[in-house]
Amino acid sequence: MCGFEKFFLKKIPITVTDCVSITFMGHGTEIEVLNAGSVKLLDRFGSDVDIVNSARVSFASYQTEMDEKASGLINFLIKNKHATPFEHVTFKFYIKCPIFVAREWFRHRWSSFNEMSMRYYVPEKLDFFFPDIDAIRKQVGKPGHYTFEQIEDTAVYDFVTDSLEQVYQAAESAYYDMINAGIAKEIARTVLPVGQYTEFIWTVNLRSLLNFLSLRNDENAQKEIRQYAEVIERLITAYVPETMLAFENNNREAI
Amino acid sequence: MCGFEKFFLKKIPITVTDCVSITFMGHGTEIEVLNAGSVKLLDRFGSDVDIVNSARVSFASYQTEMDEKASGLINFLIKNKHATPFEHVTFKFYIKCPIFVAREWFRHRWSSFNEMSMRYYVPEKLDFFFPDIDAIRKQVGKPGHYTFEQIEDTAVYDFVTDSLEQVYQAAESAYYDMINAGIAKEIARTVLPVGQYTEFIWTVNLRSLLNFLSLRNDENAQKEIRQYAEVIERLITAYVPETMLAFENNNREAI
Amino acid sequence: MCGFEKFFLKKIPITVTDCVSITFMGHGTEIEVLNAGSVKLLDRFGSDVDIVNSARVSFASYQTEMDEKASGLINFLIKNKHATPFEHVTFKFYIKCPIFVAREWFRHRWSSFNEMSMRYYVPEKLDFFFPDIDAIRKQVGKPGHYTFEQIEDTAVYDFVTDSLEQVYQAAESAYYDMINAGIAKEIARTVLPVGQYTEFIWTVNLRSLLNFLSLRNDENAQKEIRQYAEVIERLITAYVPETMLAFENNNREAI
Amino acid sequence: MCGFEKFFLKKIPITVTDCVSITFMGHGTEIEVLNAGSVKLLDRFGSDVDIVNSARVSFASYQTEMDEKASGLINFLIKNKHATPFEHVTFKFYIKCPIFVAREWFRHRWSSFNEMSMRYYVPEKLDFFFPDIDAIRKQVGKPGHYTFEQIEDTAVYDFVTDSLEQVYQAAESAYYDMINAGIAKEIARTVLPVGQYTEFIWTVNLRSLLNFLSLRNDENAQKEIRQYAEVIERLITAYVPETMLAFENNNREAI
Repeated sequence: MCGFEKFFLKKIPITVTDCVSITFMGHGTEIEVLNAGSVKLLDRFGSDVDIVNSARVSFASYQTEMDEKASGLINFLIKNKHATPFEHVTFKFYIKCPIFVAREWFRHRWSSFNEMSMRYYVPEKLDFFFPDIDAIRKQVGKPGHYTFEQIEDTAVYDFVTDSLEQVYQAAESAYYDMINAGIAKEIARTVLPVGQYTEFIWTVNLRSLLNFLSLRNDENAQKEIRQYAEVIERLITAYVPETMLAFENNNREAI
Repeated sequence: MCGFEKFFLKKIPITVTDCVSITFMGHGTEIEVLNAGSVKLLDRFGSDVDIVNSARVSFASYQTEMDEKASGLINFLIKNKHATPFEHVTFKFYIKCPIFVAREWFRHRWSSFNEMSMRYYVPEKLDFFFPDIDAIRKQVGKPGHYTFEQIEDTAVYDFVTDSLEQVYQAAESAYYDMINAGIAKEIARTVLPVGQYTEFIWTVNLRSLLNFLSLRNDENAQKEIRQYAEVIERLITAYVPETMLAFENNNREAI
Repeated sequence: MCGFEKFFLKKIPITVTDCVSITFMGHGTEIEVLNAGSVKLLDRFGSDVDIVNSARVSFASYQTEMDEKASGLINFLIKNKHATPFEHVTFKFYIKCPIFVAREWFRHRWSSFNEMSMRYYVPEKLDFFFPDIDAIRKQVGKPGHYTFEQIEDTAVYDFVTDSLEQVYQAAESAYYDMINAGIAKEIARTVLPVGQYTEFIWTVNLRSLLNFLSLRNDENAQKEIRQYAEVIERLITAYVPETMLAFENNNREAI
Repeated sequence: MCGFEKFFLKKIPITVTDCVSITFMGHGTEIEVLNAGSVKLLDRFGSDVDIVNSARVSFASYQTEMDEKASGLINFLIKNKHATPFEHVTFKFYIKCPIFVAREWFRHRWSSFNEMSMRYYVPEKLDFFFPDIDAIRKQVGKPGHYTFEQIEDTAVYDFVTDSLEQVYQAAESAYYDMINAGIAKEIARTVLPVGQYTEFIWTVNLRSLLNFLSLRNDENAQKEIRQYAEVIERLITAYVPETMLAFENNNREAI
């Protein structure tokens, strides 16, 4: 049992078969996100007690189990932005997401990425993003002050789905036609929309991850990257519950 | 006169109207790259002599002009990978390039970027990448050992151009249809291909820039990003000629 | 006239002869800090209006002068932690400070440093830190909750000064004895206390600099590094007054 | 058995009681370095096969065991400076070393550090660096072209040891006198020489670690930090033997 089986994003299908970290990319917990994406926790080290011990390196003291005082210290560190102890906890994920989501993700520079490259690789089939009906939305207001309103209308949903479908099909067909004609992959990929799914490995320390969550699991983030951030937040909470509690209790601010 | 008027990429149109650095994004040297892209040097500080003085900070000695000994020191620093003195020279560019080029560019993490965002902005028209006829190519060999061969064939050129054109038109039309129907910009952009041009500001120090040039102005880089890297290399050579000479004389390796 | 002649740290001697940025380390504004230290602004690029233009890169719009709306935008960026536009403004300083101050300074990793090295360089004389009488203090309370109380006592001041003086003299004399005996500089320096002054060049962008100021020009910082941070804050305020105003108005938090 | 019991630095005492990685700072392999220092591997994730799998993320293929082809790929990655796959392997160490060594160490910015702070902590006793007799040396030549010659002379050894001893004693006694007089720790520490031992936790990925080894386990590095780098190189070789072989075969260059 690991405590994150119930995600509050109702419409997202979630399969949690195994909550333990796994050392290898072929195995492990895979959680579905969007219509064809996923998040998998590949590996990690460190937990709340390691953060406490890192912070107490000054005192040549350490402990093996969390206690109330240790929880208080973690809250103190987050509140006062003593950030370096959180850098000694590291996570490694395998992500499958649309390119438009990946482009925001790769802006997080204190991170390591290895991504599938369409310069070298021709997938047997391409996956593309389609929003659920309750993700079709209008943007209201100006930059910095906008909100989104859900459009509850089957006709609009069909219109958007058809619009995406038409472009995706045209792109897919042009892509494989060029590949089959022997054109270089790096030229042929030019037609592929940012709605195409890509895949990458992401290694990141907990401090940088809190910054990611602060920005991406937030109402100002695009809904689609936010769904990934929510899954990631739940996955790591199993390992650093006190840190995540302190993060929540201190306005979810980056440190 | 600034010495970089003659680029050796014959087919790329180049306009150099002004070689001096400018403090503002609305002005300054703009050099065209690809069919609709450009590079503009917005600002900078530091030059070869500042690198020499940074390296000599130990000795509380400095000089105002380069001389032969100073050139020798720069070569020594590059050769022996004493890299930090090159971090005190900084450049700021305005770049317009296709998204597939930008995606490679943004992998360079020791850099600062601000990019046009299609979450907020609807351009009046969209620009898309089309290769010149001599850029149509086959990829031969396997990853790590491939080469490219130019396809000298008007029919193939027309085929590629038509393939791109069809997808671009479908995408552009679906995009504006969704925008006009009031769909959120961040959803509508999903159909846009990675051949679309984007724009960004890039601030980078000379050490990180040498790393970029080492990887991107290289025969293993994709031809399209390489054309940008070539232009950038020529633009900065006006300010750090001794550094670029030493870089060239030491296998163009990152330091 | 540059507006920062009046520092509120009364006991620190300050000489501002020239407020303009200078491109070279041999010249420029030098401000004295502590008993033998200094800060000099060597170079910079960018100002408030460049931050505004970086943030507006989405809209292909720019302006050459700040106005009320632009000031409002800077406040919005700081308040909402839209940090990247501040990375395109860069400063370069020459710092002379005690090693114990430098050790805290070099923890700021998004920075470039070139420091005087005692592996290579034997100064003609060594400079050491002595506190002013009003800097002699007791530490009261435990880590995370301590405060400092000034000790208003000439006898204590003399005791501290004598204690430092004795060690400094022993170290200086042992150092030069070993140097004169031909011992390697890198061995001889081992005796030198962290109260010795060192010198370095520091290049840093404004985002990283705000992080530095948030932590070091703060009541939790050691008084000695804080005095440097205060001088730096005043030096840069001349170039980015609206940014510093917004920083002040938003709890001086890192972004 | 773990293969690094035999260190070639003859004079360094080494105790290897346990070669397995340990998740906690209170346990684990501790290897002595210098007269009072040590290196302990606290935690890690990833090994050669993970690097191979990271590099092959493009191909959605993975393997669980190394084979000849996988070794060849690692060599190819190092040789061609495809560096990102090495960022997904991470190590965490506990280090005790002199401050003059730590100051060089902390220049490596792509790293996470938590150090004992003498602002908060008063050790019961202080440890100081003394060189072995065969580490007493002369520096011959100028910066960039110097070498070191061992001084085989008991009188010189005694002279150096006495010089260090005198200063260390004066510093220790002044330090505790000020502490006992109630002076703030952050003031009292000012007298402590850079030969004093400090302690810190260091988390670093393998790419950054290869850069560290390239510079610090090198004949141009100071002998004392090199001894630490040698121990670290041996500790990690147990986990990434193919990577270290490829590093050795490609001029030990940073990637």
